[in-house]
Amino acid sequence: MADAGSSVPIPPGGALGVLGGGQLGRMLAMAAARLGLKTVIYSDVADPPAAACAADLVVAAYDDLAALKEFCGAVDAVTFEFENVPAETIEAVAAWGAPVAPNARALRTAQDRLLEKTFVRDLGGAPAPFAPVDGVEDLAKAIDAIGLPAILKTRRFGYDGKGQSRLSEADRDDGGAAWRAAVEKAWDEVGAAPSILEGVVDFSAEISIIGARDGDGEIRLYDAAENRHEDGILRRSRAPAEAARPAQEAAAALTRRMLTALDYVGVIGVEFFVARDGGVLVNEFAPRVHNSGHWTLDACVCDQFEQHVRAVCGWPLGDVTATSSADMRNLLGEEADAWRKLAAEPGACLHLYGKRETRPGRKMGHVTLLGPLETT
Amino acid sequence: MADAGSSVPIPPGGALGVLGGGQLGRMLAMAAARLGLKTVIYSDVADPPAAACAADLVVAAYDDLAALKEFCGAVDAVTFEFENVPAETIEAVAAWGAPVAPNARALRTAQDRLLEKTFVRDLGGAPAPFAPVDGVEDLAKAIDAIGLPAILKTRRFGYDGKGQSRLSEADRDDGGAAWRAAVEKAWDEVGAAPSILEGVVDFSAEISIIGARDGDGEIRLYDAAENRHEDGILRRSRAPAEAARPAQEAAAALTRRMLTALDYVGVIGVEFFVARDGGVLVNEFAPRVHNSGHWTLDACVCDQFEQHVRAVCGWPLGDVTATSSADMRNLLGEEADAWRKLAAEPGACLHLYGKRETRPGRKMGHVTLLGPLETT
Repeated sequence: MADAGSSVPIPPGGALGVLGGGQLGRMLAMAAARLGLKTVIYSDVADPPAAACAADLVVAAYDDLAALKEFCGAVDAVTFEFENVPAETIEAVAAWGAPVAPNARALRTAQDRLLEKTFVRDLGGAPAPFAPVDGVEDLAKAIDAIGLPAILKTRRFGYDGKGQSRLSEADRDDGGAAWRAAVEKAWDEVGAAPSILEGVVDFSAEISIIGARDGDGEIRLYDAAENRHEDGILRRSRAPAEAARPAQEAAAALTRRMLTALDYVGVIGVEFFVARDGGVLVNEFAPRVHNSGHWTLDACVCDQFEQHVRAVCGWPLGDVTATSSADMRNLLGEEADAWRKLAAEPGACLHLYGKRETRPGRKMGHVTLLGPLETT
Repeated sequence: MADAGSSVPIPPGGALGVLGGGQLGRMLAMAAARLGLKTVIYSDVADPPAAACAADLVVAAYDDLAALKEFCGAVDAVTFEFENVPAETIEAVAAWGAPVAPNARALRTAQDRLLEKTFVRDLGGAPAPFAPVDGVEDLAKAIDAIGLPAILKTRRFGYDGKGQSRLSEADRDDGGAAWRAAVEKAWDEVGAAPSILEGVVDFSAEISIIGARDGDGEIRLYDAAENRHEDGILRRSRAPAEAARPAQEAAAALTRRMLTALDYVGVIGVEFFVARDGGVLVNEFAPRVHNSGHWTLDACVCDQFEQHVRAVCGWPLGDVTATSSADMRNLLGEEADAWRKLAAEPGACLHLYGKRETRPGRKMGHVTLLGPLETT
């Protein structure tokens, strides 16, 4: 096997192992198939969405070392499609000599909001104001330091707005018993887990940069997308972003620095707030293909999923040029029931993830409306 | 189950059965997966290219009625990806009540060059001059009627230039024993099978129309592609075609008539010659997704594979609008070994079919170069 990050490519006919079997794994498997590569999905649930598009499926826990070792023996390179795979798993895979990307350091940094924000700050990037919180007393001190409104977030295992509690000036009105109760409630709401308090940023726009770096250090970034979240869940991404160009350029430059500093191989998704003064603040990054990059599937020469497969398998990076403008909307829960109407819309590219059970807020698919690119 | 051709749709989660497991089945399976549909491949060879992208695989002969019946019970609709599936198989599937498209009549017509050309002529279309040939004496008479050069082609089971023999004026020079031997040799070369003699058309361009019709009779056609064949095998398709607009319009109009006359459901590929005087002659049609429509994968809102799945499954037809210009080249045999170089080209969308064995002339993949659309 080749070293991770080297440029010895996995040739067509080779097998890519993907830890995780959700819709991101599914779209990675489709991209790999297009390149003549096979995909083996490793998932801790039976019959995950990705299995229907993959050559093989292993069902085992992410810390089952015996199953992992066998999985590694059956594939030529390993990657992951969600960031809650234990970093120790990635370390074990690397120690066995299997090429694995992104690396454990990138995963570990993304998994812990405190490490993540410290990493961004050390690179000269601006995270939202933050302070570590390990108890109710810490929380009170952090509120004094950062001000309100602020959001208490667990350091680990948060996604789509889970593991968060918001504190606002209204809660503090009397500064007495009610305020003390509100602080304690927030701490309870994050499960009394190691957390950070994050100042709420007054932003004019949310943008994200989807970028890729290969084993030779080449970096390619897609056009910035402009995103809208509701209740912590991405609802919509539009590209190219309309937000001020200088903000996009600053976001792109920081993404490049992050990729290089992490010796990263694969696709990364970095979310930014554009402040009212035009500055950019890093919200968070995901060490994987990203929901706000789904528009690239239909609107770019090479989409983010193929780009990730290329990088991880040592292929040359693909062309990130956009061929259309794109307006991507997530289909949450029963919204996907309108598939027939959505499929009939002019310009619509519909993607459904094959999930059996519809649950409120669950990402069931997405639809991207294509339009002409403005030529400048 | 719904009637074939009705507009009762197969909902996401349903299963599409595809007879045939080559690259066309593979790309149909990927398109179905994108729509949340599962694919079951039925193939007469073990481990066909489509299997890696499908939920399930049945390996059995195309005339194995017991296996076919079980297959039909496991899927919600049936289609085929190559035209040498016996028409009787499609008739049997339809008789069991399984929705199947395209219908047996379309398949039967496409399978027999004599039926095909007669069908086109009866619709007011112009096939190349032709005459049926059932023996050496017929062949001699047909040559007198049609003239030379001409190509003797088996009525059935010809593809990619196989089952053909060319006769030219040079062979006739002396009109004596050598000429008689040449005629007999041609008849031998088609295996003494029922054939037609087809006059060679002096064309200025080859174009094709990829179109779709749904169960409600709605028709959508992609932009015409301009094709180049070598040794009977497609090498290159470019879209939009540069050939004269009136010729394209005549080709499109005839394609519409063909779809309606056949009560066709699904995607059809119709190949035309553009004569030096600007007229269009039908070469042949394929009752399936077509190699000269592969450019739609990367250059249209909805590609031909998804369009076929939509039509067969009773979904609304997708948007055929092109978002880029496209230059598709087939990768035959060892040409696919240059995958790394091809993958690195700006604008390149590479597709490899996962075939294990490289053989000269075998279609191993294709690459489409995207460019801007000329705005008129």
